[in-house]
Amino acid sequence: MVSGRYKACVVGASGVTGGELLRLLLNHPGIELACATSREFKGEYVFRVHPNLRGRTSLTFSDSTIDNVLKRDVDVVFLALPHGQSIEWVPKLYEAGLTVIDLSADFRLKDPNAYVEWYGWEKPHPYPDLLKRAVYGLPELHREELRGAKLIAVPGCMATAAIISLAPVVKAGLVDTERIVVDAKISSSGAGAHAPRLDLHPFRTYVIRPYEVVHHRHTAEIEQELSLLINRQVRVAFTPHAVDLVRGILTTAHTWLIKPVQEPDVWRAIRAMYGNEPFIRIVKDRAGFQRYPDVKYVIGSNLVDVGFEIDNRLNRLVVLAAIDNLMKGASGQAVQAMNVALGFPETTALDQVPLYPV
Amino acid sequence: MVSGRYKACVVGASGVTGGELLRLLLNHPGIELACATSREFKGEYVFRVHPNLRGRTSLTFSDSTIDNVLKRDVDVVFLALPHGQSIEWVPKLYEAGLTVIDLSADFRLKDPNAYVEWYGWEKPHPYPDLLKRAVYGLPELHREELRGAKLIAVPGCMATAAIISLAPVVKAGLVDTERIVVDAKISSSGAGAHAPRLDLHPFRTYVIRPYEVVHHRHTAEIEQELSLLINRQVRVAFTPHAVDLVRGILTTAHTWLIKPVQEPDVWRAIRAMYGNEPFIRIVKDRAGFQRYPDVKYVIGSNLVDVGFEIDNRLNRLVVLAAIDNLMKGASGQAVQAMNVALGFPETTALDQVPLYPV
Amino acid sequence: MVSGRYKACVVGASGVTGGELLRLLLNHPGIELACATSREFKGEYVFRVHPNLRGRTSLTFSDSTIDNVLKRDVDVVFLALPHGQSIEWVPKLYEAGLTVIDLSADFRLKDPNAYVEWYGWEKPHPYPDLLKRAVYGLPELHREELRGAKLIAVPGCMATAAIISLAPVVKAGLVDTERIVVDAKISSSGAGAHAPRLDLHPFRTYVIRPYEVVHHRHTAEIEQELSLLINRQVRVAFTPHAVDLVRGILTTAHTWLIKPVQEPDVWRAIRAMYGNEPFIRIVKDRAGFQRYPDVKYVIGSNLVDVGFEIDNRLNRLVVLAAIDNLMKGASGQAVQAMNVALGFPETTALDQVPLYPV
Amino acid sequence: MVSGRYKACVVGASGVTGGELLRLLLNHPGIELACATSREFKGEYVFRVHPNLRGRTSLTFSDSTIDNVLKRDVDVVFLALPHGQSIEWVPKLYEAGLTVIDLSADFRLKDPNAYVEWYGWEKPHPYPDLLKRAVYGLPELHREELRGAKLIAVPGCMATAAIISLAPVVKAGLVDTERIVVDAKISSSGAGAHAPRLDLHPFRTYVIRPYEVVHHRHTAEIEQELSLLINRQVRVAFTPHAVDLVRGILTTAHTWLIKPVQEPDVWRAIRAMYGNEPFIRIVKDRAGFQRYPDVKYVIGSNLVDVGFEIDNRLNRLVVLAAIDNLMKGASGQAVQAMNVALGFPETTALDQVPLYPV
Repeated sequence: MVSGRYKACVVGASGVTGGELLRLLLNHPGIELACATSREFKGEYVFRVHPNLRGRTSLTFSDSTIDNVLKRDVDVVFLALPHGQSIEWVPKLYEAGLTVIDLSADFRLKDPNAYVEWYGWEKPHPYPDLLKRAVYGLPELHREELRGAKLIAVPGCMATAAIISLAPVVKAGLVDTERIVVDAKISSSGAGAHAPRLDLHPFRTYVIRPYEVVHHRHTAEIEQELSLLINRQVRVAFTPHAVDLVRGILTTAHTWLIKPVQEPDVWRAIRAMYGNEPFIRIVKDRAGFQRYPDVKYVIGSNLVDVGFEIDNRLNRLVVLAAIDNLMKGASGQAVQAMNVALGFPETTALDQVPLYPV
Repeated sequence: MVSGRYKACVVGASGVTGGELLRLLLNHPGIELACATSREFKGEYVFRVHPNLRGRTSLTFSDSTIDNVLKRDVDVVFLALPHGQSIEWVPKLYEAGLTVIDLSADFRLKDPNAYVEWYGWEKPHPYPDLLKRAVYGLPELHREELRGAKLIAVPGCMATAAIISLAPVVKAGLVDTERIVVDAKISSSGAGAHAPRLDLHPFRTYVIRPYEVVHHRHTAEIEQELSLLINRQVRVAFTPHAVDLVRGILTTAHTWLIKPVQEPDVWRAIRAMYGNEPFIRIVKDRAGFQRYPDVKYVIGSNLVDVGFEIDNRLNRLVVLAAIDNLMKGASGQAVQAMNVALGFPETTALDQVPLYPV
Repeated sequence: MVSGRYKACVVGASGVTGGELLRLLLNHPGIELACATSREFKGEYVFRVHPNLRGRTSLTFSDSTIDNVLKRDVDVVFLALPHGQSIEWVPKLYEAGLTVIDLSADFRLKDPNAYVEWYGWEKPHPYPDLLKRAVYGLPELHREELRGAKLIAVPGCMATAAIISLAPVVKAGLVDTERIVVDAKISSSGAGAHAPRLDLHPFRTYVIRPYEVVHHRHTAEIEQELSLLINRQVRVAFTPHAVDLVRGILTTAHTWLIKPVQEPDVWRAIRAMYGNEPFIRIVKDRAGFQRYPDVKYVIGSNLVDVGFEIDNRLNRLVVLAAIDNLMKGASGQAVQAMNVALGFPETTALDQVPLYPV
Repeated sequence: MVSGRYKACVVGASGVTGGELLRLLLNHPGIELACATSREFKGEYVFRVHPNLRGRTSLTFSDSTIDNVLKRDVDVVFLALPHGQSIEWVPKLYEAGLTVIDLSADFRLKDPNAYVEWYGWEKPHPYPDLLKRAVYGLPELHREELRGAKLIAVPGCMATAAIISLAPVVKAGLVDTERIVVDAKISSSGAGAHAPRLDLHPFRTYVIRPYEVVHHRHTAEIEQELSLLINRQVRVAFTPHAVDLVRGILTTAHTWLIKPVQEPDVWRAIRAMYGNEPFIRIVKDRAGFQRYPDVKYVIGSNLVDVGFEIDNRLNRLVVLAAIDNLMKGASGQAVQAMNVALGFPETTALDQVPLYPV
C-alpha cells in the first residue's frame, strides 16, 4: 500500500479481460497499478497491445511468473488466466497473504468432484480447503462474505446473468426448479485473444451459432448458486449461442410457474432482493424504446438489466438479463468484488453510463 | 400462360420479400414475370428500388390494385403485403381462378377465431371457407395438398424453422408436448421496409433484443401444425429475439423427453420424415467447422439445417433449425410451394448454394 | 447558476447528439441539467428515449420552444437541432445573454454567401454580425477566442477530423494546397434519428457507400479553417463514404509534398501544434497492434488520433485522423468548447478511456 | 476431359478463395471437379471445411503436392495458394501442358525486377519467360489473349476494381496520370483463413483501419495495366483501408481533369470500353436507392459496378468501383478467365444476381 492506495497486479494482462481490468484500475483512485504480466508480450508497452490505453500509461508488461508478482510487494492480484492455470498461482499467492481475485473457473465450484464432471479434470480439485475459503464473487448474493475476503472466484459471464435474473424467482418459490431452461446469447470477446479459425472475422461474423448445446460448464455454477439459495437442488438446462457482437450477453430463462402468480408478485420478489443494488436495473416498461433487457443499453457499464414477462396461457415465466460480458461478466465484476473486499465504495471506478448507441 | 410459361405477378413488390420474389422469379424458366406492383413506387423502374436487379430487368412497378392485376391475365399472383391487407385481395383473385400465393398471415390459421386471439382482430375471420381451402405452404408437411392448390398460405418465417425442426420428434412421440420451449433468434429483414426509429441502423445494430416475449403470433401456426401431426393439442412457449443480422433465423427448441431416447432414435425420426427432402440437411457432426445448424451456412439458399442434442442428465432434447428468413422463411418457400402447385420440379430456381462466408 | 454550478439546457435532446450531450452533462460536476427539450417526446421521461440513462435521471422532456428555455433562467444552451433551425433560436438566446452552443452548421461559416453556395439557401445568411461573433468551436485552433465566448458554432464531424489532421502540415507549408484530397469514412449515427428507408438496418448495413461525392457541405468549413491558418485560399476535394458502423469517422487526406520532407519534419509540425493538446494522440508506430489511426481505438472517447505516412516514390503525404463522431465529432467537442468558454478544466466530463474492444 | 467436360483441380482448396472456387466449379456444366487439395485438411470431407457445400459434394481433400495433381490427369488447375508458393507449382504444371490459373501475385507483373521492389523478393523473378507468357486475367482488358491461354495470372482484388474503373478515363486521356489517388476500402475475407490476433473477430470488427498506407503491392499491377493502355507510365497513389465487412471492395479514384470534360464525355469513354461487357454495370443515377457503386449491391455476384462524378469547382473527376472481392476480385474472375480460355460462354456459372439485402 502506497500513500493510501493498494498496489495491484494483473496477471495475464494482454488478454481481453486483462485489458479491461487495466482500463478500470487505471481510473481507480484507491489502486496503484504496480504490474501487468504477459508471457507473450513481456517487455512491450501495455498500450501497444491495448491501444485504447495509449496516452494513459507507460507501463510495460513484465514476466508472468509467480516470483515476479511476489517480489513486487503488491496487495491485490487479479488472475486473468485461462482455465486450469490459476490453480497453480492461487495457493502460493494466497499463502503469501495477498488478496487474490481469480477470473477463471478454477475456484468457483465448491464440490471438488464437480471439476471432474464439468471441466473434465482427471482428478477432483486438489485444494478442497481453498475451495471452501474462496468466495463466489457475486456481490449481489455474497456481499457479506466478500468483505475482507482473501480469495475471490469471479463468476462466469453467462452464469452472472443467469443467476442474477433467476435468483429472486427461485428464492420466492415461484417456479419449478426441475424445469428451468436458460437460453443464452453471447458475443465474441469472451473467447479471448488466442483462438482458432472459427474465431477469425470472416467465420465468426454473421452467425447465430449454438455451441456446447448441453453440459456447458457454466451450468455447474448456476445450479450451485441457485441451489444454495433454497437449500435444495435446482436443475438448469443451459444452452449458449454465439452471436455477431463483440460485447454483451443476454440470458433468457424460460421457467414454469408452480402457483398462481401476477406481475406484482414478480416485481416484489425482484425488488426484495435487488431494491438497493447499485448495478441492477429492473427493465419492464410499457412505453419508450426499451421494454425488456437488451445488451444495446448496457455496453460499457457494469449494469445488469433484469426483466420478465408472465405467459398466463402456459403458466410460464420468462426472466431476462442483459450484461456487458467484459464488465459485469468479468472485469467489472472483479473490480466490484475487490471494492467490497477492500472496503471501497462499491461503485468506485464502475459508474460509467452505458455508451449508446454504439 | 405464354409459350409454355406461366405468367406471374408480385403484389407489394417494393418490399424486401417482394424484391426477393422478383430475384427468384426472374431466374425461373417456367415463369414470365408479368407485373410487379407498388403503391409507393408506381411507375418507377424496379431496379431503382432493388438495385441488385439493375441490368436484369427493365420492368416498372405498376399500381397495386386488384383491377390492375386482374386485367393482366396472369396465372399466378404472389401477395407480399402487410398482414391484414391480403384478406381484401385473396377472395377476388381466388374467384377469378388464379393461383394465389399469400405471404401474409391472413390465411394461415384454420380456426377463424384464432385471428381474434392471436392477431387482435375484432371479429373472427370472415372467410372460413377459404381458410379451409387454403393450403399451409410448407411442402415438407403438405406436399400432396399443394399439388394443384389455388390458394397457398406461406408459413411465417420463424414458424417454418420451428415446425420443421420439431415435427419429427413430436410425431415420433419423443417429447412432452405440454412443455416445448422455442427460443428464436431473428434478423432484421423480416421487419420490412417501413419501420419506426428502432429499426434505423444506429438503434437496430448491437442488439440482442427480446420482443413479444410471450404470445407472439407465430405461436398459433406452430401449435396448429404440430397438433395436426398427432391429432392432439401441442403447446409451444415461444419467445423471439432480434439480433444484429440482416438475414437468418435460428430456432432452439428445448424439449423434455418422455421416454428413454438415444441419438439413433432421433436420427431415425428425422430421417423418416425428411430423408428425401431436397432442402433439408441434417447437421450434427463431431468434426469439422459446423457441428450444429447456424445461419452462417444457409444464407442465400432455400435450405433448412436441422440438428439436435440429447441432454441425458436432464432428459432434455434440444432441436435446432437454421434458415435464411427471406428464402425458406418467405420468398424461397413461396416459390417452392408454387413449384409443387404448378408441377415444376421442386427445386427450380431454388438450388443456390449458400453464399459463404458472407 | 446554482450553488456554483451553471444551469444548462439541451434543445433537441431526443436525437442522437442530444442524447450524448445529456450523458456527458449529467456527469459534469459544474453543470446542472435544467432542461431537455423535444417536440416529439414532450412530457416523456428522458430515459425512455435514451435507455442508457435509465437510473441516472428522472428528467422529462419539455417543450422545444424558445420561451420554454428562456423562462428557465439557464446559463448555457446547447442547440442540437437540424440544420436550418438553429438560425431561429440563436439570435434570441444570444440577445438574452446566454452562452449558446450550436451543434448545427448555421453559424459555422464566416461568409454569409457561403450558405447560398454550400447549403442551398436562397439568400445570404441574414445575421452576418452574429457570424462574425460566433467562434468556430475547435479548441485546438480557437482556444483563446473560446474563452468567455457567448456563441459557439460546433464544427462538423468530418470537418473536425479533416481540419485537425491537415492543419499542421498546411501551416508548416509542406503540401500543395491546391490538390488536397480528403476521403472520409463515416458511421451511421451522424444521420440522426429521423431517416428514410436507406437508413433502416437492412439497407444501411453491409455498405461501403459513397455519397455527395463532390460538393459535400463540410468542404466549406474545412477550406475556411485551413485557409485562415495561412491567410491564403486552400482547396479541398472532399468525398465521404458511409460504412457499416454506428460510431466513428476516419479521414484520409492525400496530399502532395511541395518540398523535400522527412518523417521528423512532419512529426515536428504536428507536435508544434498539438504537443500539449489533451485530446490529440499522435499514432504512428512500427510495433504493436495499432500503427495508424483507426476508429477502433477511440470509441467512447473525445480523442483524435492523428497519424501520417510519407510516400517517397510519389512525393505524397497521407495524413489520417480517427474520431468518435458523437464525441469529438459533436457532443464531446461541444462540451469541450463549453469547458473552455466557462473556465472549467478542459477535460472535465471528457476523460473517458476508449471502450475497447467494442 | 470426360464426357465433354474438362477435369479441374483446385490447389489450396481449404482457404476462402479455394472454397469459393469449389462453390462455382461444382455448378459449372463444363467442369468436372476432379480434386481439391489441402495440406492441413488432407483426407477430410470438403464440406467439413466449407459447410455451405454440405449436401453438394462428397469430395475429400487430397494432398497438396504437384505429383498428386499431375497423376490425376486433369486439364485445368487453379492455384489458390499464398503468394510466393505458386512459383514452385506453375513451371511444372505449365510444362505438363495444363491450363494453369494462378490466383496469387506470382505471375502478375511483367517486369521481373518488380518482384524485388514490390514483393520484397531477394532476387528478380526467376522465370521471366513465363511472366511474358502469363496473361493478366482481366477479360475486360485481355480477352483476346486469354483465348486458349495456358497460364493466367488472376488480378489482385483491389487492383481489379481500380483498373476497371480507371481504364476508360485514362485511355480517353481525360485525367492527369501523375496525380491519381486510389483510396480503397476492403473487407476481411481477402485476408485468408490463417491470420494473427488482429484478424480475430473482436479485433477486426468495428474498424476503419488504414494499412500499408503507401507502397501497397497492388499498386504495381494497377500502374502496369493502366500504363499498358496508353504506352506511357501512369502513377497511382494507392491506400487501402480495412472495414468491418466480410465481402466487398470499393475503390474511390480521385483524379484531376486535364481538359474540359462534361458528364457525357465520361459516359462515352466508359461505354466505349465496356458497352458490351457482361459483368460491368454503369451506376450513376439521379433517382432510386442507388446513385453510385456500393458493395451492398454486388455481393454474391461477379459484377463490377462503375460510377463517377465530376467536380467542376476543382476540375476533379471521381471514379468509383464496387465488387465482391471473392467473386470478381478472385474466384469469380478466375472462372471468368477460364471460361474465356477454354471457350465456354463467359458468364457460365457466374450469372448469380447479387444477394440483397444481406
